[in-house]
Amino acid sequence: MNMKRWIILSVFATLLSCWLTESREKNDIPMIGAQIIVEPWQSPEDVDTWFRTMSENGMTVCRIRMFEQYMRTDDNSWDFTCFDTAFDSAAKYGIKVFATLFPMAHGHNTLGGFKHPANEEHMKAISGYIAAVVGHYKAHPALYGWVLMNEPGTGGRLPSGEFADEMMREWETAGRPDGTWTEGYTSDVFNRQRFLSYCNTRYIEWLSEQVRLHDSSHEIHINNHQIFSNAAEYDFPAWRGCLTSLGASAHPSWHFGYFNREGYAVAMGANCRIIASGAGDLPFWVTELQGGTNTYSGYNAFCPTAEETCQWLWTGIANGADGIIFWCYNPRTVGEEAGEWALVNNDNSNSDRLDAAKSVAGCLKKNEGLFASAAPVDPHVNIIYIRESLWAEQQMQIDVSQDIAWEGRQKGGVMKSAIGMYEALMSCGINANFMEIAEYDWSREDYSGETVILANQISIPTYRMDDLRHFVECGGKLVIEGLTGFFDENLSALNNVGRPLEDLLGGILSEVKTTPGDFRMKIPEDAPVHMWKGTIANTSGTVLTKDEAGAATSTRHRFGKGETVWFPSLLALGARRSGEYGPLASWLKEECGISVPVSYDGCEPEVMMTLMETPQEYVAVLINKASAPKKIRLQGVSGKGRIIFAGKDGKVSKNKVSVSPEETLVAAWPK
Amino acid sequence: MNMKRWIILSVFATLLSCWLTESREKNDIPMIGAQIIVEPWQSPEDVDTWFRTMSENGMTVCRIRMFEQYMRTDDNSWDFTCFDTAFDSAAKYGIKVFATLFPMAHGHNTLGGFKHPANEEHMKAISGYIAAVVGHYKAHPALYGWVLMNEPGTGGRLPSGEFADEMMREWETAGRPDGTWTEGYTSDVFNRQRFLSYCNTRYIEWLSEQVRLHDSSHEIHINNHQIFSNAAEYDFPAWRGCLTSLGASAHPSWHFGYFNREGYAVAMGANCRIIASGAGDLPFWVTELQGGTNTYSGYNAFCPTAEETCQWLWTGIANGADGIIFWCYNPRTVGEEAGEWALVNNDNSNSDRLDAAKSVAGCLKKNEGLFASAAPVDPHVNIIYIRESLWAEQQMQIDVSQDIAWEGRQKGGVMKSAIGMYEALMSCGINANFMEIAEYDWSREDYSGETVILANQISIPTYRMDDLRHFVECGGKLVIEGLTGFFDENLSALNNVGRPLEDLLGGILSEVKTTPGDFRMKIPEDAPVHMWKGTIANTSGTVLTKDEAGAATSTRHRFGKGETVWFPSLLALGARRSGEYGPLASWLKEECGISVPVSYDGCEPEVMMTLMETPQEYVAVLINKASAPKKIRLQGVSGKGRIIFAGKDGKVSKNKVSVSPEETLVAAWPK
Amino acid sequence: MNMKRWIILSVFATLLSCWLTESREKNDIPMIGAQIIVEPWQSPEDVDTWFRTMSENGMTVCRIRMFEQYMRTDDNSWDFTCFDTAFDSAAKYGIKVFATLFPMAHGHNTLGGFKHPANEEHMKAISGYIAAVVGHYKAHPALYGWVLMNEPGTGGRLPSGEFADEMMREWETAGRPDGTWTEGYTSDVFNRQRFLSYCNTRYIEWLSEQVRLHDSSHEIHINNHQIFSNAAEYDFPAWRGCLTSLGASAHPSWHFGYFNREGYAVAMGANCRIIASGAGDLPFWVTELQGGTNTYSGYNAFCPTAEETCQWLWTGIANGADGIIFWCYNPRTVGEEAGEWALVNNDNSNSDRLDAAKSVAGCLKKNEGLFASAAPVDPHVNIIYIRESLWAEQQMQIDVSQDIAWEGRQKGGVMKSAIGMYEALMSCGINANFMEIAEYDWSREDYSGETVILANQISIPTYRMDDLRHFVECGGKLVIEGLTGFFDENLSALNNVGRPLEDLLGGILSEVKTTPGDFRMKIPEDAPVHMWKGTIANTSGTVLTKDEAGAATSTRHRFGKGETVWFPSLLALGARRSGEYGPLASWLKEECGISVPVSYDGCEPEVMMTLMETPQEYVAVLINKASAPKKIRLQGVSGKGRIIFAGKDGKVSKNKVSVSPEETLVAAWPK
Repeated sequence: MNMKRWIILSVFATLLSCWLTESREKNDIPMIGAQIIVEPWQSPEDVDTWFRTMSENGMTVCRIRMFEQYMRTDDNSWDFTCFDTAFDSAAKYGIKVFATLFPMAHGHNTLGGFKHPANEEHMKAISGYIAAVVGHYKAHPALYGWVLMNEPGTGGRLPSGEFADEMMREWETAGRPDGTWTEGYTSDVFNRQRFLSYCNTRYIEWLSEQVRLHDSSHEIHINNHQIFSNAAEYDFPAWRGCLTSLGASAHPSWHFGYFNREGYAVAMGANCRIIASGAGDLPFWVTELQGGTNTYSGYNAFCPTAEETCQWLWTGIANGADGIIFWCYNPRTVGEEAGEWALVNNDNSNSDRLDAAKSVAGCLKKNEGLFASAAPVDPHVNIIYIRESLWAEQQMQIDVSQDIAWEGRQKGGVMKSAIGMYEALMSCGINANFMEIAEYDWSREDYSGETVILANQISIPTYRMDDLRHFVECGGKLVIEGLTGFFDENLSALNNVGRPLEDLLGGILSEVKTTPGDFRMKIPEDAPVHMWKGTIANTSGTVLTKDEAGAATSTRHRFGKGETVWFPSLLALGARRSGEYGPLASWLKEECGISVPVSYDGCEPEVMMTLMETPQEYVAVLINKASAPKKIRLQGVSGKGRIIFAGKDGKVSKNKVSVSPEETLVAAWPK
Repeated sequence: MNMKRWIILSVFATLLSCWLTESREKNDIPMIGAQIIVEPWQSPEDVDTWFRTMSENGMTVCRIRMFEQYMRTDDNSWDFTCFDTAFDSAAKYGIKVFATLFPMAHGHNTLGGFKHPANEEHMKAISGYIAAVVGHYKAHPALYGWVLMNEPGTGGRLPSGEFADEMMREWETAGRPDGTWTEGYTSDVFNRQRFLSYCNTRYIEWLSEQVRLHDSSHEIHINNHQIFSNAAEYDFPAWRGCLTSLGASAHPSWHFGYFNREGYAVAMGANCRIIASGAGDLPFWVTELQGGTNTYSGYNAFCPTAEETCQWLWTGIANGADGIIFWCYNPRTVGEEAGEWALVNNDNSNSDRLDAAKSVAGCLKKNEGLFASAAPVDPHVNIIYIRESLWAEQQMQIDVSQDIAWEGRQKGGVMKSAIGMYEALMSCGINANFMEIAEYDWSREDYSGETVILANQISIPTYRMDDLRHFVECGGKLVIEGLTGFFDENLSALNNVGRPLEDLLGGILSEVKTTPGDFRMKIPEDAPVHMWKGTIANTSGTVLTKDEAGAATSTRHRFGKGETVWFPSLLALGARRSGEYGPLASWLKEECGISVPVSYDGCEPEVMMTLMETPQEYVAVLINKASAPKKIRLQGVSGKGRIIFAGKDGKVSKNKVSVSPEETLVAAWPK
Repeated sequence: MNMKRWIILSVFATLLSCWLTESREKNDIPMIGAQIIVEPWQSPEDVDTWFRTMSENGMTVCRIRMFEQYMRTDDNSWDFTCFDTAFDSAAKYGIKVFATLFPMAHGHNTLGGFKHPANEEHMKAISGYIAAVVGHYKAHPALYGWVLMNEPGTGGRLPSGEFADEMMREWETAGRPDGTWTEGYTSDVFNRQRFLSYCNTRYIEWLSEQVRLHDSSHEIHINNHQIFSNAAEYDFPAWRGCLTSLGASAHPSWHFGYFNREGYAVAMGANCRIIASGAGDLPFWVTELQGGTNTYSGYNAFCPTAEETCQWLWTGIANGADGIIFWCYNPRTVGEEAGEWALVNNDNSNSDRLDAAKSVAGCLKKNEGLFASAAPVDPHVNIIYIRESLWAEQQMQIDVSQDIAWEGRQKGGVMKSAIGMYEALMSCGINANFMEIAEYDWSREDYSGETVILANQISIPTYRMDDLRHFVECGGKLVIEGLTGFFDENLSALNNVGRPLEDLLGGILSEVKTTPGDFRMKIPEDAPVHMWKGTIANTSGTVLTKDEAGAATSTRHRFGKGETVWFPSLLALGARRSGEYGPLASWLKEECGISVPVSYDGCEPEVMMTLMETPQEYVAVLINKASAPKKIRLQGVSGKGRIIFAGKDGKVSKNKVSVSPEETLVAAWPK
């Protein structure tokens, strides 16, 4: 296939496929399942055992990686035997299959997956693989859908070679932003990042088109890993047209390096929020959830406890996931993860994690009516990260000290600021939305009751400034924290020359003082603040707080029907580093006016609450990460609560909830 | 010389040389000596002073590096003047010379030594150098033997270029294991490591052959450094045919990075055990022992104390070394170690370390009868490491966190587990054997009273599994700890599919839970355990211990006439990291039934004992590394002990021994 | 222009320019100023505001980087508009301009500056740029002088390519030292370093010549950064012929990594001393002083306080700087430092740092008579560093542990030893000279009253040994500390063979013992010592101190009319690491006989004093870095002191001075 031709073809095919795809049926309740590793040396008995026990444990879905090297014969024809065995067992036990396309890499075999094809010949081989595999399984009763590839994130690595060259030619034709590749003063310094994102999207589109050439009806999915850093290279809105659902790979040991172990549950919540937002109107899945132990793999190796397994499952469910698939049911025997990650023990008995999953699946089934109609409550609070801010931070990392006294300016400072806001709100029982700036709907005419938080988003693209103005003019509340808006999309500093946000903020950033480590400021309570303290040259706003020298440290500014609240210091990181979320949480609720139907009466950073609702009830998932039992008094519920799931001896009495350490408690209250 | 021809020639020459070599005479007592650095700008008076004082200090052997660049004239002929001066002085004072071959590297001079030749031209040059040097000195009365090269270990670096290509062709012909170089699922992932080991052996064989072409009678030796990691690339059994003795380079500052300073004496013991095992029936030497201070060289720079010097000498002697040679007597003036490492002070007076060496040499001389007949006591306990386990661990290191909470899965975890077992036994006064799996004699018909310990040897090659079965069937006791046997020789996980050791162990590994850091388990005493806790799906063994959830954490299994004891958690690393060796030591003695003729009554991890015997007596070397005096009560001796050497005010009273801090005490008891 | 021809031309042109240059007028008082960033998108109003407020704040000088890319039009002609605007504003407010030449790099634009040209074509382009810029501005009334390039230091990186090849040919012709590039035993191991220094000097000469072709009268300057490590590649005496002043870039966040924040003031002093010495008879400037906050740039990011700003200004002034220029007045909007470093706030109001600068400028103006005639007092104590010692240390860094227990042998140990001596003397109120060995005048006939300190200068070049002998023979006092003289200029160890300094020192270094961390020795007081303890085999000196074993640890030796004092252990680092400078300071004053006209009565390491004098008065700048007020009693002044500047509530009463925390106090006493 000619590379230039597929560009045109892909547009046509994508349109075609959208028309052909049957509308997805709403799952009655979230599906729980796991990756089945299929390897040619497994006995059919073992394979049957795995599917049988999955079913016995309440699981209804699995994922299978369709290794091309396991279906290629010596004479280069196809032998699907081991996969047929697995699909047939799946059908036998009523398990649906998400099949992950996994063609061979160019040149020689690898056990990991490649992220971009090498050249036209390689694309031809991939296309042939898809034709064979999709052709073979599209009519199989067990087939649920296709995962286009495993984890498209590249960690920021640009493709190179023939494919990349062709992409570049196409991108130039398609109208990439002006500028050159050099870092001169007129050039677009982030063209590399934009090009990578373009390549990722285009390759995914092409894969989807290839599948749709052979299968017009099944689900098309992709799962994204390492979201807190790879978010910099994803363009989810652009992907929606060629997917039917979006997924998360959420392995704490690999992906939650910005959190300590106590924070993995809240990380799971934030990860779900990001993917749910990326999915837009499509459903989202937790396509990979750490099922078992790391031995040699995983950055921060550990074995999840049964309690953690419960916490992550319920967090996914309460955030609205259509399903959750563990990685993995049985362990691989080869590769970097050989013998690791499994839910089943080596003698195929249940691990305590599998028992936990079984208990959650059982509860969903038992409460089918409730969970089929429950959906997350929109808090109308939106924590927004900006890809250009991640790019800007990365660009600035040359030779920076890794001493944590400077954590805020190291890689991660931008995203950790957004995370700190999510955690601060979570400490009030508020599960904020978490999204990229392009995912928010900037086209509405009324934003009353909506809050947008930009926490240390150091780069605001010029082409988004009017969106922000429009949002506030139409009644929205905009919270600006840290060095948000320090740069534009080309790393030009905005404060000394131009000052394009002065009208919106009612002032300009006067100066920033850097103090390694942490100090305290009034916000208005005494709060820990990290490293950067900004002061404001206020022109038309209201000064809320001042420092000892009388300089304004925060302001409020009326703009149209809405207002901005601006605190140009690292509050979120100060709270996050100290674990002291109270002052920031109070400030957000009081000064910024954030409120939701149900939340805590006070601040409780060690307890996490994710709220769903049905037409009749509020359904809250509460998780206690403290080492002592916690009692929480809820605002917004008044009737008699009922317990849906209690991992330990959790109790509900009116609006008071008791949760044991590490327990997950699911309870419902009448509206 | 044609490269293809030397392969054939070498077989012939090696056979010839074995026939020609006179049988080595047993040294009456271990020889003590030092490296004399010979440089062309030294005065003959200085050189004479060094040999004279060596002799006055009781030394009888030296080593000299035969720098080709110091014997090459401008017209490319040979000028041996400075080496002649040294050899003549050596002869004058009765000092024997180990001459280290040190030809120039290919292309240009370097001060360090190369590990493989570059190409045929380079081999010709080396061959010419050997002809000249061996020809010139073979009849010199001071000559003791040849060291083929300095420290053959490459740190894992594969050779490349013409020589490597030829080796690869030869290896393929000679029947390398199947598989390709790529990491596909059918390939042999460790071919690189096997090829490196092959190259090392073949080059050493070729060097030996070159020497034997000119000198059929003197010793042929090689010294191995950084043993705890370079062991991964040595194949000692294959070397024995072309050597007459094997040696250790044992410099704590460079080579004992797995130990802290208090552990250097025990590291010396383990190093000696490994080299003694590698040597097999050949004698072994400590060919390089740190003689003096590091200034800029050495990873963990320090200056040995006089007490440490004593400790290391006696440890070498008690482990059966034929001799010990310090690096170095006089310092080099050029190179990375210029001005460092010396035993003599710059004014050629004795350092305190040289005084210490003198005292040990004097004691050996004074007790000539005793030390001529003393030999190490075989404890019949064999701690076995497996090269494939070291390779597997290395392969798994991609992106692994260096936080010591995960020490066990970082590079070194495999060897440190074996070391931890050595230390635990040493804390009972037992000096275990320490060897690579290929060095153990698996061909015997009765293993009653023999124990083999596999501590966290994560890869067991398939072709060794029958050896292990045979060993246990014939009465041996096999102790399996940590993740021993998690992989086969190709990094395939063995536990979920295949399970080839189930018959031997009476069960399979059920699962492993990873917890960063350390926790405690019953073994049966409360013991510190590091990171990995394994549980067993027991089928036919006896469960010894269980965890809180009732899962088996250790089992005993009768197999033939012998038995296995299996504890799939990191006990040895737990003991090592905490310094708390008592519970593991008790478990090894009681549960595993380890006993030796003489050991401690209890556990004393800060005192080290190495045991020799003569037909009439037990001779124990005791070293106290604690900061307070220690009293040890010995089991297995009853008569009146006598002191052979006391570094400080050590005392012996029946079976009770008192040792001062840092003291080395040598004492003998009638059998 | 032919590259070979410019070599000859440059000699001629340099001579010509020296003849043409008008003699620089002495500034009446030191000038205070700042870098104005000029960018084409600035409004003329903003530019005018900056120059106006500079003037209002007492500033009289600025620096402007003449970006070629901001003056190039699309048709490759010149457009100086934005720079003309700035120069005209400067003239309007009486601000003098230091214009920094900043041609474009070869091939493509970069925002940073290159350090060497790429090839002849690039040199032609640079030459054309200089012709255009110098031609355009040489007659502008605001022009003060030219900065040849920004910060010539390369961090040790050799140039490569056409320019480097030509330089190498020239260097060979010009008589580079014998030896080859390989590290063989006969070669000159530091030819790389010598060649780099040669290239740096030659390129600077060429730039100066290019400027002088068009402008025969204005100042020619260059500013050197990261002095404590880049000193290794500078040859200041060779530069003097083509400059009219020398400068320092002194940004604590980038350049003072060998100091903690409390030490930045003393670092500024040492930096000034080094540059003042490098300048020789030429004036020196602090050409860049950190003016504002780091956000993402700077290794140890921070925002200077107003107090620190005062301290650094007064330290520069008291060390005799002709002027001090902040980096920067207004912030850049692009590049790695965008939005950072500025003195003015973003609304062009004064930061507290700018207020501080204004107060200092005002004081200078008010005391014009005093400061026009004040000059630093020569203490006749010279701390000397040796470039070969820095090279030797760098060479030794392969694989060295970064554990601070071995700080002394890591990169920086050599320079930190010299710094430790500077700090120890400063703790007595003595501001020692600090210079490279080539900068000291070794040609005098009488050195009575002069002290030279070589602190751990590990390499003494052979060609300097007679200078040292001459110095002592003629009455000088030579203090030798640490491993000074361990190597010669080719990294050959000097102590075991040759011993070329034995006559001067009256003995040889017996041995060095390395102990990681710190320990204590008598010097004669009990003092902290780091890592290296040396002992002396004394032949003709007087033993001053001995260790427990009776070995000499320090000696004094009469040689000609002078004497040496030798303490071959790391005293200065011991003092520096512990902050315990008292014993070393006492030793230097008593044993080494160091004294100056005015100093402390005792030791006060947290207070810094820099001494100037006029014909009538001593003028002392005192800075208190302690967190509590300090009272200092001065020796050498007796009359009534008067306060010239008090940052807080400092007081003077006779010879007693009180200084508040962080305060800078300037006071004068009659002589």
